[in-house]
This record gives sequence, C-alpha cells and structure tokens, in this order.
Amino acid sequence: METTPNNRSKREWEKLQAIAGNGLLDRRAFLRGGAAMAGAMMGYTFVGSAAAEPLADDAWSKAPGNIVPAYGAPSRFEKNVVRTLSNPNSEPRTSHARTPHHLHAGNPDIDPDKHRLVIHGLVKRPLVFTLDALGRYPMVSRMTFVECGGNSAPFFSKEPIQASVQALHGLASCAEWTGIRLSTLLEETGVDPKAKWLIAEGADAPALSRSVPITKALDDAMIALYQNGERLMPGNGYPMRLLLPGWEGNMNVKFLRRIKLVEQPAMSYYEARTYAPILPGGKAYQFYFLQEVKSFITHPSPGMMLKEPGFYEISGVAYSGNGRISKVMVSADRGQSWAQAALQEPVHSKAFTRFRVPWRWDSGPGVLQSRAWDEAGNVQPTRAQIVAARGETTKVPPVTGFPSQHYNGITTWAIERNGEVKHVYA
Amino acid sequence: METTPNNRSKREWEKLQAIAGNGLLDRRAFLRGGAAMAGAMMGYTFVGSAAAEPLADDAWSKAPGNIVPAYGAPSRFEKNVVRTLSNPNSEPRTSHARTPHHLHAGNPDIDPDKHRLVIHGLVKRPLVFTLDALGRYPMVSRMTFVECGGNSAPFFSKEPIQASVQALHGLASCAEWTGIRLSTLLEETGVDPKAKWLIAEGADAPALSRSVPITKALDDAMIALYQNGERLMPGNGYPMRLLLPGWEGNMNVKFLRRIKLVEQPAMSYYEARTYAPILPGGKAYQFYFLQEVKSFITHPSPGMMLKEPGFYEISGVAYSGNGRISKVMVSADRGQSWAQAALQEPVHSKAFTRFRVPWRWDSGPGVLQSRAWDEAGNVQPTRAQIVAARGETTKVPPVTGFPSQHYNGITTWAIERNGEVKHVYA
Repeated sequence: METTPNNRSKREWEKLQAIAGNGLLDRRAFLRGGAAMAGAMMGYTFVGSAAAEPLADDAWSKAPGNIVPAYGAPSRFEKNVVRTLSNPNSEPRTSHARTPHHLHAGNPDIDPDKHRLVIHGLVKRPLVFTLDALGRYPMVSRMTFVECGGNSAPFFSKEPIQASVQALHGLASCAEWTGIRLSTLLEETGVDPKAKWLIAEGADAPALSRSVPITKALDDAMIALYQNGERLMPGNGYPMRLLLPGWEGNMNVKFLRRIKLVEQPAMSYYEARTYAPILPGGKAYQFYFLQEVKSFITHPSPGMMLKEPGFYEISGVAYSGNGRISKVMVSADRGQSWAQAALQEPVHSKAFTRFRVPWRWDSGPGVLQSRAWDEAGNVQPTRAQIVAARGETTKVPPVTGFPSQHYNGITTWAIERNGEVKHVYA
Repeated sequence: METTPNNRSKREWEKLQAIAGNGLLDRRAFLRGGAAMAGAMMGYTFVGSAAAEPLADDAWSKAPGNIVPAYGAPSRFEKNVVRTLSNPNSEPRTSHARTPHHLHAGNPDIDPDKHRLVIHGLVKRPLVFTLDALGRYPMVSRMTFVECGGNSAPFFSKEPIQASVQALHGLASCAEWTGIRLSTLLEETGVDPKAKWLIAEGADAPALSRSVPITKALDDAMIALYQNGERLMPGNGYPMRLLLPGWEGNMNVKFLRRIKLVEQPAMSYYEARTYAPILPGGKAYQFYFLQEVKSFITHPSPGMMLKEPGFYEISGVAYSGNGRISKVMVSADRGQSWAQAALQEPVHSKAFTRFRVPWRWDSGPGVLQSRAWDEAGNVQPTRAQIVAARGETTKVPPVTGFPSQHYNGITTWAIERNGEVKHVYA
C-alpha cells in the first residue's frame, strides 16, 4: 500500500524551529538525536509490509552487470553531468571548461521511480524513498576508506609473494562520500526497540545481503549518493550504497534497495560462509566487521628501481577503522631503529593518511617497514603475531574458509644493492 | 652546459640529520626555512644560462593541444595507471579491482627527458629538473580551488542573465594537489637578493607566461604533479603546473617548463592586456592576483524545479583566496533576515567549503542569497558595491578590457510560485 507524499500533520511542521524569514530553519534541527526531523515534510512514500516482501525485481536485478572498467567512469545515466566547453573544437583561441556545481546535488537522468530504497521490518512506519526524496534530506560529507575484508590476503602465504603493492594491498581506496545519515532516515521510520540488527540488500543480481548491528546504523552509517563530488560511479553502487565507515568492504552494500530491521542477524551466505574464516582452534571468525589499524609503504615499493644513491622520500598510506591515525613509525634497518613519519594534515577519521619520511639511500641493502598507531591506542601487529593467531597457508590466498582476511600486519620491502625493491618477511 | 646529477659535496651530506639507522632523516629537515635541503643529493642537473635562453621547443610546444574533453580523462601516457581487475570479462563470480597505490608516486610512461623544468635567472645555481628528479623531493598535499579571473563575468551585465550556476560560476573547481613546494626548489638553486619576481612559462603552444612576486613563490606556491591522487590530467597541465593557492587561475601556469627569477615583472601579453581591465576612473586593474571571498547557492539553482512545498536543504559553495571561510549567512527573504549556515568540516584554507541550511518552502515566492566571510575578516560584497567600483556592461561578458573579472559579489536566486528558480539582481 502506498500513500501520498507529504501527508505528515500540520502540527509536526510547527515543531521546526525557524531562525530567519521565509522558512529558514535552525541548522541544529537536523543534528542526529534531534526530534525535529520527524516533523519535516519530505518526498517519501509509506509502504505496507506486503509491498516490501518480496520486493519486485527490476531488470537490473536479474542479470549480471556491466564489465568493471580499469579506469572509473560514470554511469551512462550521468552522461550530461559534464563540463561545458567554450571551445569544444579546440579552435586557436581561449578555452574554458565550466564546473557543473549544481549537479553535485541535482537529479540524475534515471527515472527516480526506477530505483527505490525501502526501510521496513521492526520500524514504526515502513517507508519507500525515491532518489528525488533522498535529495531533499540534509546531507553530510566525510572522507573514509573502503577496504575489502580480503585485502592483503597474500600475506597469509608461507612465502612472500613477489608482486606490486597494488596486487598485495590494492583492495582498498579512500574517497569523500556525501549522503544522508542512516540515523536521519531511521528517525523518519521510527525504530521498534526490539530491533537489534538490520539487513541491507543490494539491487544487483547477486542481491548481496549483510547484517549490520543497529548500533552502527545509528552511529556513523550513511546512505551515500556522491563520491568525490560526483554521483557514485557504477562500480561503487550507483545510485546509492550503504556506507559503514571503517567496516569490512562488502558490508557497504552497493545498489542498496532494502534495509530491514530485525532481531537477529540474517546468517546470509556471505556472512555465514565467505566472510567467516576458520581460526586455528576451529572457531569461526564471524561478524568480525572492523578493518583494523594498518599501514604500508607505497614509495618505494616492489616493481620500482632506485637508479642511484641519494635522497628519496619514503611515503605510504596508513588508516584505521577505529578512528584517526595518531602515529606512524618507519624503519630502514629491519626494525632495529625507527623514525617518526610526518603525517599529511588534516588527518581524517577512518581515512587514508599519507605519511612521509626523508631517507638517504647509500646504495647498501635496506629493509623498509612502517608501523601505525590509531587514536584508540591500537598498534599495527607484526606478521608473526597475526599468523600465530590466525594461521598460514601454503596456497596463494584468497582461499575461502582459511586465513585470507583482515590482515593488517607490518609489510616489509627489501632494497637490494642494485636498487631493486623486493617483498620479504621480516 | 649540463653536469652529472648528484655532484654535491660529501660535506653537504653530513649536514643531514640522521634519526634512525640506515639513512632515515629528521622529518623536520625539510620544513620550509631549513637549510638541510641544500645538502641533499638529488637527481637534478646544472644548466648554464646559455642553455635556458632560448629553451628548445619540443613538438608539443609548437602545435595546438588536444580537444578538451567534457569529462576529465588522463593523459595517454598514464594509460597503465589503472585498477587491476580479477575478473576483467565479468564472468559470474566475484570481481576485485585493485588500487594502484604505488603509482601515486610512480614514474609516468613519458620519457622524463622529454619534459624539463628549468629554474634560472637571478639564482645562484640554475638547475634543470626532470620529472624523475622531482619525484625524489619531499612532497606535500593540500586542498585548494583554482578559479579563472573571469569567472562570474556575467554578473557585470546590466540585466541578470538566465543561465545555470555552471554557466555563471563554473570557471572554478577544487581539488587535492600534491607536489613540491617551490620554496624547496628555490633553496636548491639559491635566490639572488635582487630577485623580486619570477616569470613562469608553460610548454604548450601559447607559451603563457605570467609574473609572480617572489614572496608568493616562497610562501605557498607548489610545483603540482598530482591532482586527487592521480597524475595531473592533461587539462590541468600534465605533467606539472605551478600552483598559487588562492590566486587568479591563469597564473597557475600549466605544462610548466621555466621559472626565471627577475627584478621586474615581464609585462607579458596576458598581464598587460587580458588580465588588466580598466576601472571607471581610467586606471588599469593590473597585478590583481587574489581571488577574494565568495559564495553561491548551488541547490536550488536555476534550471531546477521545486516540485512541491516542504523541506529542502539549501546548499552551496564558499571560498576565499585569503584563507579559511569563517562564516556563511543565508537569506530566503531578499536579505531582510539571515540564518547562519553549517559548514562542512574540515574547513580547508583557500578551498571550497560546502555550506548547508535547512529550509521549509511554503510555495510562496522566495529570494535566496548567501554571503561569506573569511578568517582574514573580509566579507563578500553586494553586487551593487562591485558595480559601483568597477562598472557595468550592456554586453555579455567576457569583454576584454572592460569589467569582466574578479566578480565576488552576492548571487541571488528567486524561487517562483511554481517552483522555478530564476537569476535576479537583489
């Protein structure tokens, strides 16, 4: 059952606090925890639970998606979100390219009725949101990394695998995400106190669903609509994805179409099998969501060659799902001595932080390592510590069910006398 | 005359302060103002002044460049800097795309000998830098906007021009830039105390050259090599540009090939004519570098339609070449009353700052305006104030020589009863 948008009571309107003429409202009215949001007139639609179970499948939910491009490109529905050119044929005169400032928050060409977000289950009022309706809510922006739980899996291998840092640690990236706090939408639906989890489901053919504790949903979870100021690229879940800053990548469900509040986790395929590796003692490493404090050196790194002795800048990336990076130490002598790296300001919470240390390579052998700390006091473990707790494999990971996930140990690069950079275990 | 790289004296090496084994140096050794940089062994080349005047022209300096794409794309020399795909044919299994972390600071496919940066003139040691050599220097990252001096020129028109915010204010954008402080390179060359200006010259066919006061060069100027973590796109001056945070866009010379330190400005075509508009009193507005405090509302904005009354978020962009935005006020009633907007944290210096205010549109007419302040105490002027000082035109700008530049006045959008958004003058 669907009802007309904007059928909230007049009385609820009155709760909104005007602070200047012609409808300007107090900016704090929409901070999380405020009750005012429940009174806003928004473009959503009520939905009966019959309409949400099962959700009708659109064509794009029934077939595999497009091929992933090697270099990110926008959805074809965003083809008009481009720069306007004053000299499109490159004639011999000046050329201007104008930024589409307004399309940062504009309407996509996709018919907004074609994709919906349903929030239902243990809520007071199940609601359906079109993209258009979501575009009217208060938005926030934040930097955060998204990292696959299986990133760095090759480090569980008994022998160090000779590969680039892209191959070894490349299942992580960092962007500025813009969207609506999930807590804002849950204030609209109301939350039944029995709700302890939510199940997030994507509209793509695999219909990935993952269980998320309600505490995370009410903390910093976001319905992300924009990435780096543009609509999400298809590979990031266009037109919307769940963003759970600092948590395992696949939980940040792409193409998000449903959030169902429930009492117990779903025990879905992805959480009961794929993302539940077995520990040496036989227990499963299940519902392990956090991506812990980590760092690695990107320059120099395997595949690069130092052509001559002299000055180089060692630089790399550090991040933690717990918050801000507080310190990164770097060693050039296999951990015998350490130097504190400079951190690129501003240091964002749960985001890539670039670190840098000046280094003079005298053409002798060197063993480079980085080790990160976060503001919650966590320190990046050694590889030996991780392997002791979680096991090792003779096969090249990822090997489902065996240690292949949540590796955040120290990475070690050896500089050989000829300037080659090799992956080694310390 | 060229000499071998790394021919600095052993004694200079000793000045570098080691703080951990095997060559790790004090991270403060490279802060601006330190003398240690002069002792680093780097991959640059000395050059006699005979080799720099004139610089030999490469093929790309003699012909117009490629057509500007509507959506930014990397240089063809960067075609290998892409994600690696575990499932490039999109077979029905999982798909991973790995980030090229290491190519953030890697070598481009372009032969580094093909593009050089020469620093000469009133310096102690004229030097030539290849891309390879620059890649070994300490780098910094910062957010900053780049705005054309002629952005917002339509606001000098007597009648408000009905166009999108992209057409009206689109010659500005904001990015994270990574590169080497120009001051670091000037410590390498040494600066003759007679030098008061530098002339920056690009390697593209127009050979744009602009004069920059040496004070700016020693303050926050950067040789930018990366934008948003990737090599500069061709439209931003691949492989390197001068970055002068907060200053007129065209001074951020793209395809930078030469910096010559001099006593007097060059009085180049671009600074003596194009960027020297005449004021009402007859004086020229010359050497006016700063892009002053400014803001405009991007949502809602012309071309958008409010479909129904209710809640909307007013949001827009504010920035100042003087530093951080300290406050943005928004009015919905043609300036009779104002509400303070929320600023998206973190607020970076000389960078786009998104502001947001909740708004309840009751379907009556509205007149939306924003006004920004910066941390230096500057306030965005009204359009009337700017026109009084600089004149007005009946022609649609840009009109060379007449008021068409450095408009930073208040922008006004009218919301009509049917929800249409129009450009008006307040």
